[in-house]
Amino acid sequence: GDFAKIDHHRALRTGFPEVVFGLGKTPCQIAQIMQVMVSKNPVVMATKIVPEVYTQIQPSLRGLQYFPIAQICYLGESAPPKHGCITIITAGTADLPIAEEAAVTGELCGFQVKRLWDLGVAGIHRLLSHQEAIANAEVIIVVAGMEGALASVVAGLAACPIVAVPTSIGYGASFQGLAPLLTMLNSCATGVGVVNIDNGFGAAMLAAKILNRGQ
Amino acid sequence: GDFAKIDHHRALRTGFPEVVFGLGKTPCQIAQIMQVMVSKNPVVMATKIVPEVYTQIQPSLRGLQYFPIAQICYLGESAPPKHGCITIITAGTADLPIAEEAAVTGELCGFQVKRLWDLGVAGIHRLLSHQEAIANAEVIIVVAGMEGALASVVAGLAACPIVAVPTSIGYGASFQGLAPLLTMLNSCATGVGVVNIDNGFGAAMLAAKILNRGQ
Amino acid sequence: GDFAKIDHHRALRTGFPEVVFGLGKTPCQIAQIMQVMVSKNPVVMATKIVPEVYTQIQPSLRGLQYFPIAQICYLGESAPPKHGCITIITAGTADLPIAEEAAVTGELCGFQVKRLWDLGVAGIHRLLSHQEAIANAEVIIVVAGMEGALASVVAGLAACPIVAVPTSIGYGASFQGLAPLLTMLNSCATGVGVVNIDNGFGAAMLAAKILNRGQ
Amino acid sequence: GDFAKIDHHRALRTGFPEVVFGLGKTPCQIAQIMQVMVSKNPVVMATKIVPEVYTQIQPSLRGLQYFPIAQICYLGESAPPKHGCITIITAGTADLPIAEEAAVTGELCGFQVKRLWDLGVAGIHRLLSHQEAIANAEVIIVVAGMEGALASVVAGLAACPIVAVPTSIGYGASFQGLAPLLTMLNSCATGVGVVNIDNGFGAAMLAAKILNRGQ
Amino acid sequence: GDFAKIDHHRALRTGFPEVVFGLGKTPCQIAQIMQVMVSKNPVVMATKIVPEVYTQIQPSLRGLQYFPIAQICYLGESAPPKHGCITIITAGTADLPIAEEAAVTGELCGFQVKRLWDLGVAGIHRLLSHQEAIANAEVIIVVAGMEGALASVVAGLAACPIVAVPTSIGYGASFQGLAPLLTMLNSCATGVGVVNIDNGFGAAMLAAKILNRGQ
Amino acid sequence: GDFAKIDHHRALRTGFPEVVFGLGKTPCQIAQIMQVMVSKNPVVMATKIVPEVYTQIQPSLRGLQYFPIAQICYLGESAPPKHGCITIITAGTADLPIAEEAAVTGELCGFQVKRLWDLGVAGIHRLLSHQEAIANAEVIIVVAGMEGALASVVAGLAACPIVAVPTSIGYGASFQGLAPLLTMLNSCATGVGVVNIDNGFGAAMLAAKILNRGQ
Amino acid sequence: GDFAKIDHHRALRTGFPEVVFGLGKTPCQIAQIMQVMVSKNPVVMATKIVPEVYTQIQPSLRGLQYFPIAQICYLGESAPPKHGCITIITAGTADLPIAEEAAVTGELCGFQVKRLWDLGVAGIHRLLSHQEAIANAEVIIVVAGMEGALASVVAGLAACPIVAVPTSIGYGASFQGLAPLLTMLNSCATGVGVVNIDNGFGAAMLAAKILNRGQ
Amino acid sequence: GDFAKIDHHRALRTGFPEVVFGLGKTPCQIAQIMQVMVSKNPVVMATKIVPEVYTQIQPSLRGLQYFPIAQICYLGESAPPKHGCITIITAGTADLPIAEEAAVTGELCGFQVKRLWDLGVAGIHRLLSHQEAIANAEVIIVVAGMEGALASVVAGLAACPIVAVPTSIGYGASFQGLAPLLTMLNSCATGVGVVNIDNGFGAAMLAAKILNRGQ
Ligand SMILES: Nc1ncnc2c1ncn2[C@@H]1O[C@H](COP(=O)(O)O)[C@@H](O)[C@H]1O
Ligand SMILES: Nc1ncnc2c1ncn2[C@@H]1O[C@H](COP(=O)(O)O)[C@@H](O)[C@H]1O
Ligand SMILES: Nc1ncnc2c1ncn2[C@@H]1O[C@H](COP(=O)(O)O)[C@@H](O)[C@H]1O
Ligand SMILES: Nc1ncnc2c1ncn2[C@@H]1O[C@H](COP(=O)(O)O)[C@@H](O)[C@H]1O
Ligand SMILES: [Mg+2]
Ligand SMILES: [Mg+2]
Ligand SMILES: [Mg+2]
Ligand SMILES: [Mg+2]
Ligand SMILES: [Mg+2]
Ligand SMILES: [Mg+2]
Ligand SMILES: [Mg+2]
Ligand SMILES: [Mg+2]
Repeated sequence: GDFAKIDHHRALRTGFPEVVFGLGKTPCQIAQIMQVMVSKNPVVMATKIVPEVYTQIQPSLRGLQYFPIAQICYLGESAPPKHGCITIITAGTADLPIAEEAAVTGELCGFQVKRLWDLGVAGIHRLLSHQEAIANAEVIIVVAGMEGALASVVAGLAACPIVAVPTSIGYGASFQGLAPLLTMLNSCATGVGVVNIDNGFGAAMLAAKILNRGQ
Repeated sequence: GDFAKIDHHRALRTGFPEVVFGLGKTPCQIAQIMQVMVSKNPVVMATKIVPEVYTQIQPSLRGLQYFPIAQICYLGESAPPKHGCITIITAGTADLPIAEEAAVTGELCGFQVKRLWDLGVAGIHRLLSHQEAIANAEVIIVVAGMEGALASVVAGLAACPIVAVPTSIGYGASFQGLAPLLTMLNSCATGVGVVNIDNGFGAAMLAAKILNRGQ
Repeated sequence: GDFAKIDHHRALRTGFPEVVFGLGKTPCQIAQIMQVMVSKNPVVMATKIVPEVYTQIQPSLRGLQYFPIAQICYLGESAPPKHGCITIITAGTADLPIAEEAAVTGELCGFQVKRLWDLGVAGIHRLLSHQEAIANAEVIIVVAGMEGALASVVAGLAACPIVAVPTSIGYGASFQGLAPLLTMLNSCATGVGVVNIDNGFGAAMLAAKILNRGQ
Repeated sequence: GDFAKIDHHRALRTGFPEVVFGLGKTPCQIAQIMQVMVSKNPVVMATKIVPEVYTQIQPSLRGLQYFPIAQICYLGESAPPKHGCITIITAGTADLPIAEEAAVTGELCGFQVKRLWDLGVAGIHRLLSHQEAIANAEVIIVVAGMEGALASVVAGLAACPIVAVPTSIGYGASFQGLAPLLTMLNSCATGVGVVNIDNGFGAAMLAAKILNRGQ
Repeated sequence: GDFAKIDHHRALRTGFPEVVFGLGKTPCQIAQIMQVMVSKNPVVMATKIVPEVYTQIQPSLRGLQYFPIAQICYLGESAPPKHGCITIITAGTADLPIAEEAAVTGELCGFQVKRLWDLGVAGIHRLLSHQEAIANAEVIIVVAGMEGALASVVAGLAACPIVAVPTSIGYGASFQGLAPLLTMLNSCATGVGVVNIDNGFGAAMLAAKILNRGQ
Repeated sequence: GDFAKIDHHRALRTGFPEVVFGLGKTPCQIAQIMQVMVSKNPVVMATKIVPEVYTQIQPSLRGLQYFPIAQICYLGESAPPKHGCITIITAGTADLPIAEEAAVTGELCGFQVKRLWDLGVAGIHRLLSHQEAIANAEVIIVVAGMEGALASVVAGLAACPIVAVPTSIGYGASFQGLAPLLTMLNSCATGVGVVNIDNGFGAAMLAAKILNRGQ
Repeated sequence: GDFAKIDHHRALRTGFPEVVFGLGKTPCQIAQIMQVMVSKNPVVMATKIVPEVYTQIQPSLRGLQYFPIAQICYLGESAPPKHGCITIITAGTADLPIAEEAAVTGELCGFQVKRLWDLGVAGIHRLLSHQEAIANAEVIIVVAGMEGALASVVAGLAACPIVAVPTSIGYGASFQGLAPLLTMLNSCATGVGVVNIDNGFGAAMLAAKILNRGQ
Repeated sequence: GDFAKIDHHRALRTGFPEVVFGLGKTPCQIAQIMQVMVSKNPVVMATKIVPEVYTQIQPSLRGLQYFPIAQICYLGESAPPKHGCITIITAGTADLPIAEEAAVTGELCGFQVKRLWDLGVAGIHRLLSHQEAIANAEVIIVVAGMEGALASVVAGLAACPIVAVPTSIGYGASFQGLAPLLTMLNSCATGVGVVNIDNGFGAAMLAAKILNRGQ
């Protein structure tokens, strides 16, 4: 892995080790980078790993775990459990892969994860039936495509910080996630921090840093 | 008014007379067009008339009424009352001018108008306290800027058709109304027809045509 | 279908049962969701189902009908016929799949559907020969790609509400349907409600809600 | 005018002398450039000259004519009449200034100009009543804002070349003329050449070159 | 071909018969439409026909000619030769397919076509060596991708009308042809009419209508 | 204030009372809304209040404080001090108004605020000289216009959550804040939540909710 | 100037002292920053200073020079002359202010500047008459708005590096400089580095760094 | 290669021979063009050649070298070594192909190349450990995707000119490279010239022209 300068002290500096971003790299590069990292870090994680890539890198990485919906690879011991719970809410079933990316990342960081799937605003009673869980949450990740209205509604019901993840689910004027991205950035309710389209991993990292305060 | 070919039969063909669009015309042109029209149509209406323009055209148009918030000018008798009521819901106080443009247009067409102002989704209980009015509405116009999430939530509570009007209220990534426009087009709830940004007039005309069916 | 919270009361609340959106879901998820739904609803419908997905879900869903051009799957009895007719007009032959999505949806809702295909404005006499049908229509869906000018022309000839569906047909500066979307939103004729690019289903649902008034 | 290298042979090379573009130049620069040009060319023309600029440059340019709607300044003898007529059609009254820019340019080039104002597609009979004039035209300039649908309809009725000028008339999703620009570029009718938004001058120059063939 | 209302009088009205647009239609639809058309028109043309589609439709259309670079299919006698020559200039070799689409269309209309390939502005002497051909041309089509600067330079050297075709050739900030499209629309030289990105066919039709004047 | 339904329970539900958004409202409306709110809430705050508006509303609102750089109005007692400190870092001097909007909001919520102004990445040593403050921060707001690179660099040095505020400072290809917005959303460092362009208020509210956890 | 951390070592590190960016700062802030800077640096420069700002800051900054077309303020001795000449070419007269911003910056850095104004490609002979100057240049700055084609043509004639500055000159589809920006980024000729729209200052700084090599 | 007018004198005029752009050409066209060029130029280079194309053209081009990561083909003797070194810095491993395109181009031009891979700003110490190399560099190419912040940071540390190459690495709101492109254009540090997204070749050519000065 001469082509990669791994940032081995990132865990010390920011609280989490570096993570391999799986897009735009060859399976061979991914395997090599993970091998170098595992020699210095207790755990190594890689995101956006499609099944074909997993199949190719798996032989050379002993003990590699794969979370197929989340498209995450993981090497090493489970992280010691931490205090705190991340509540993840999705608008629709199609947002599941990104929500699972967030959920698995959160769990690998050692946090508890509460999954509330398919509570889109078109049937608001579904969301309202979880009103108490929302009001008591420590941090909430909202994952929504199409028009992404869920983030504003949840933020209006919650006292905790909201991490909003627009997804590229939809078609036509969703413009690959631009519509929910703009929706979330313009939320009329406060306390919403937005991450990149389809960035379930980043949402979980932000949630983890929020929960991490004072541990 | 030689420069304008007024569509005098529009009322016969589409049920409503032509309306003067006030932007990009000189006050003098507006006055002339309205004078010609009033000679052939019982009523004449003009939209997007700012106070300065009203002041200039008013002397030459006897009996001209002006609705300053709605920025509408009107000449002629009130339309005979029609059956049907248009419910208009706004997300915030700043959406008021566009909502009034819709409300005044609807009233001038002869319909009843029910105004539900400032029910944005950041405090969803405000909207839910009107749930019955929404469920029983005949047609609803939703006027919202910023992220425009209100349209989806209302559409999920209503059985009637929804006309959604994005407004240019907001700043930054609302991009002059692009954010609520995309939100409304991508609504995960069905039964939503979208009109142009800030087009309160057009929303009311569509609502009127919906109510008009079978009268 | 634990991952999906189906909105079983939607039919009561909004007049139509929930519909499965087929993009971004695995065939297995679609089949599971439809099985759960069919146990609670008399009819279940799924949209944007490509033939390969149909082939995979069909074995586990007894009595599943498939409309290949419309890309719609349907389970259950035909809806009882309702009063009212939806007139659907397309600009070109390539708009057919989206127009059929609207037509099949309308028919499954119980309405009559009148199909007027390939009446693009480049040969306006084709449209004018249907002028009477347009003038007498109850609600019209206009489906058009490329420049989408058809919506304005039809709206100028009709007294009823128009639902406009921009399609992604075209190339270059149509920007996947952005061109007809903007055209339809800026229509100089009134009474036009726009839905998302390629959203034939949504257009029909809006048309159905318009016809549904007072039934 | 040392800051400007005037292209004195342009008339020889392309058939028309250079024209001063009035935006982004100080009145003083405009006056100086016109003085230099008039010493070498029989005629000098400047476009996009607002009344305030005209007032400032007029004292130092003897015999300067000003066309206030078209915002054109002109110095020199009328051009000798040429064979050929440019037909100019506008969608609405607000498109008049750009249409006049085209009309005055065409007339200053020596061509006859036929003005057909306010024939937008919302009332298609207005256009159809000029069907013969359109069918017999030598070249047509269509000037339209909002959705710009007029260009396609005219092109479907005409045998001659069409020059389409989108205007920035409209609001909201017209995005300062982007909507009619895309409409015109995607015209389903053939024979349409598009120029820049609000470029009435350029449209007339193209029309003039088309008429000029073989004179 | 019940799904298609062919515009059989288009040739009479606009001088050219209708042409089948090959994108977004099934091979089966294309074949059917061409069969119906050929029964009423002496010639039938279809554009954007990729080799696989040609292979599928060819068996059912006797005498079908195919131009593989231009991706055009043609049925019927050659058009009688007309007076006039279309000069086509490309910026680079990669613009060839679109340039050929224009060239074949022009030839099928009966005009002479002069091909000047690969004269991009990065080596301006290549273009200048054709300065006389440009100065004497009757109508010029400029086909260019990447930055599309060629159109302005050619327009500055020519007295005749220029039809500019932006192509989607390029990558990155060419944004699928947006860059040359904007370049051509903003040309500082006059006499340029722009058509859609990659619309070689439309460019030739406009050129043909320009040449057609007075024949 | 009949036109405004104030969300009086917001403080209970989300921990903070509603805040008046000052854009798009008349001074008169703002004054009325604040008067109604102050009768029910101990504190009332309004944002985006330009000096002219302040001057007009100040007479009718006794005890109104104004923060001219932050453009915030405030009525009521200071909030009781809370545990926790918000560190705010700006890239340049021009980002100051938005940074002050965040700082004043944070202070009015009762938190301590640490201001680190003008530490743009063009002189990275300025930022590095605060490395310890960054490493020990509880939550950091990064305010940056132009290219917005500061957020990524800070996120790489910090263990705490980062709230990133793109500003509209810059010109040309900053496109009113689009450039730093995209930069911040694509941050290669994790733990960054983005709010709307120029939304200093929203950034502080999110930071406050992050600090609020467990108080 | 407590709000500004001036980067006093920038001259040592990068060869040029920091420069004050005049947009989005109050005249008072600009004056204060310049006073602090002048106490540590031999020269201080500020850009984008409109005349009104100059008038306000001038009394408190003794010896302040102002270049009104370039909108640059300068304090201190002239820089010692350096070897090397920057050739600046503009497309049109309206590009002059940005070109002067570049020219004055270059001169204040100590370089010679050669101004070639108004050589747009619409009259290519104007440019070709300077072919020798171009071929022998050390570094060239091309300043062009509208379609920006000049950069590619110059790059094809020159052996030296080209710095391209798109300007916001134009209207309609120039979209405030987006058109020439894309043109320059997609240049088919090599050796072109692009800076921000209207960034004459940045262009000169890059040219200066290029000339600076090995001095 | 009749379809290609090769610019054989380009080496004389600009210092480098023409290079074949491999996108949008058939393998057959590429092979033919290279054969013609090699008969007139000592060296021939082609870019953006994917492995499948290389395999097809290789048999007909004797001695063809292929650089698979850089996707460059090369025919001819190595260029004589020149004075000067290009330093290339990448933000991440995924930027490697574009960085190699630049590196191989630079080496084929005869320059030395120093590769500094994977120094993204998320771990700024990695970059700072190369501070001396950066301070002493002659010219630097920065290759970065996602948010592209690296260019500004490097420019703040360097005295030499910077060539910035945005890459399409990333997803969601990177919009295929738009995000880093805007970042680099808005760099708050001076001395940065930007080339097209993914244009490693163009970056190296600009760097080469910068180094070439005075050789
Ligand atoms: N506020 C408005 N928004 C959109 N369209 C309008 C508006 N007011 C009037 N119109 C339409 O604009 C047309 C009149 O345009 P004009 O001939 O320019 O006055 C009428 O047919 C109206 O239907
Ligand atoms: N209204 C206009 N729109 C577009 N181009 C124009 C316009 N008026 C003049 N021009 C062109 O701009 C060039 C002159 O630009 P300039 O040297 O800046 O005055 C002339 O060659 C004209 O062809
Ligand atoms: N500067 C601001 N930016 C974004 N949202 C704001 C701002 N100020 C207030 N708000 C939100 O806007 C809502 C009030 O909107 P309105 O009813 O129009 O006054 C409140 O719920 C606030 O959370
Ligand atoms: N006209 C300009 N365009 C772009 N950047 C500039 C300009 N003038 C100054 N700068 C840069 O802006 C920085 C100063 O920003 P500030 O601290 O806000 O004054 C300096 O580092 C300059 O390199
Ligand atoms: Mg669902
Ligand atoms: Mg409110
Ligand atoms: Mg057809
Ligand atoms: Mg009109
Ligand atoms: Mg070539
Ligand atoms: Mg500074
Ligand atoms: Mg000029
Ligand atoms: Mg890395």
